[in-house]
Amino acid sequence: MANLDSVQALTFDVFGTVVDWRSSIIREGETLGRAKGLTVDWARFADSWRGRYQPMLSRVRKGEIPWTKLDDLHRMSLDDLLVEFGIKGLSEAEIDHLNRAWHRLDPWPDAVHGLTRLRRRFILATCSNGNVALIVNMAKRAGLPWDAVLGAEPARHYKPQPEAYTITAEMLGLKTDQCMMVAAHNNDLKAAAGCGLRTAFVPRPSEHGPLQSTDLAPSEAWDVVAKDFEELAAMLGC
Amino acid sequence: MANLDSVQALTFDVFGTVVDWRSSIIREGETLGRAKGLTVDWARFADSWRGRYQPMLSRVRKGEIPWTKLDDLHRMSLDDLLVEFGIKGLSEAEIDHLNRAWHRLDPWPDAVHGLTRLRRRFILATCSNGNVALIVNMAKRAGLPWDAVLGAEPARHYKPQPEAYTITAEMLGLKTDQCMMVAAHNNDLKAAAGCGLRTAFVPRPSEHGPLQSTDLAPSEAWDVVAKDFEELAAMLGC
Repeated sequence: MANLDSVQALTFDVFGTVVDWRSSIIREGETLGRAKGLTVDWARFADSWRGRYQPMLSRVRKGEIPWTKLDDLHRMSLDDLLVEFGIKGLSEAEIDHLNRAWHRLDPWPDAVHGLTRLRRRFILATCSNGNVALIVNMAKRAGLPWDAVLGAEPARHYKPQPEAYTITAEMLGLKTDQCMMVAAHNNDLKAAAGCGLRTAFVPRPSEHGPLQSTDLAPSEAWDVVAKDFEELAAMLGC
Repeated sequence: MANLDSVQALTFDVFGTVVDWRSSIIREGETLGRAKGLTVDWARFADSWRGRYQPMLSRVRKGEIPWTKLDDLHRMSLDDLLVEFGIKGLSEAEIDHLNRAWHRLDPWPDAVHGLTRLRRRFILATCSNGNVALIVNMAKRAGLPWDAVLGAEPARHYKPQPEAYTITAEMLGLKTDQCMMVAAHNNDLKAAAGCGLRTAFVPRPSEHGPLQSTDLAPSEAWDVVAKDFEELAAMLGC
């Protein structure tokens, strides 16, 4: 393991790395489906919703649409999905509640305890594409102990644009090499490393369900590879 | 007391409202003075440093200087003060450490426990002119349980400019009347109320020392007036 003595803050990817978005969206869909008598393949629905995520972000990154927070991008996708899946009869309040399912994602089982250990020694900040309200509401519900909620919205740039990482470090008053990006996604770490951040890979092999084929292993020699946040805490001396 | 059922977040002024900057800067000065054999009136030093705060912010608000975070404005003032007070022989590291005394301010005795009670029911966010790193480091040292560190730096506007309040509410995903500004300063509450926020006045009658003559009482009919954060928590049903 590289010498990491200068690291003062850990900056976290959230969707997939800290929380299990897929199971949570399926759960929310099933609850809604039972209440409204809907017959929907909620696993396919969750995957379709997430599948529209990068293309939406890409439109913002390319400047095709002006800065739009993730809640609103999720809603644009959701409006399309309701048509695609033939889901009818939802009120505006019900659609809004479903859109905010992303505020109610459950953490992976090791996340809260692992973060609590890591927080003893490090500043813990989010560096997520989720907007501040989404991450704050999620943290409040799940008990995620962030010191700061940063990332795309305060930086007004979506990862993997460099500003998402560099402005996060700058707002923490740190140089990029005093920050370590923690993510379950190799491309996120590659972009962070390109900005000078240290890197920790924590694979989440069931993020995309039982057939996941991506991000099962580190694609490069990241500074740390840990199987979960408990092991990460142990490796970082917490 | 007004009907405050719609309030979901409390947004806090920090310097003076949550932390006792004057006693803390005096303490830091005295520690430095003993170590370096300096004879300085640290109370006058603290007051002079804080006295340069609004004029500095004003230069940014008027656009005379570009956006500059508070740490850097503090340092510009400090460099002048070292000359004014005849303080010599400090290394760059010692000057930087003194400048970061603002990261090590102590909370008022009721603050941590009162906030911990308030957090059970409300989202607690800072809406301070302090930059993110300053507020995060202060919170980490003092145990201040913020859900989000917002305010001037993420909004890139210094209070009392409206954007400092409105962007804070927007980042929390709330309307301004779903937020309540908590401050020991009438002018801060007046600006917040002008943006639609609810208001809570918590006087800190010794913020400026034993001879304080301002902000001893509410200047208007704020939504809530409480003598400290414990009373605020009780009044808000926490």
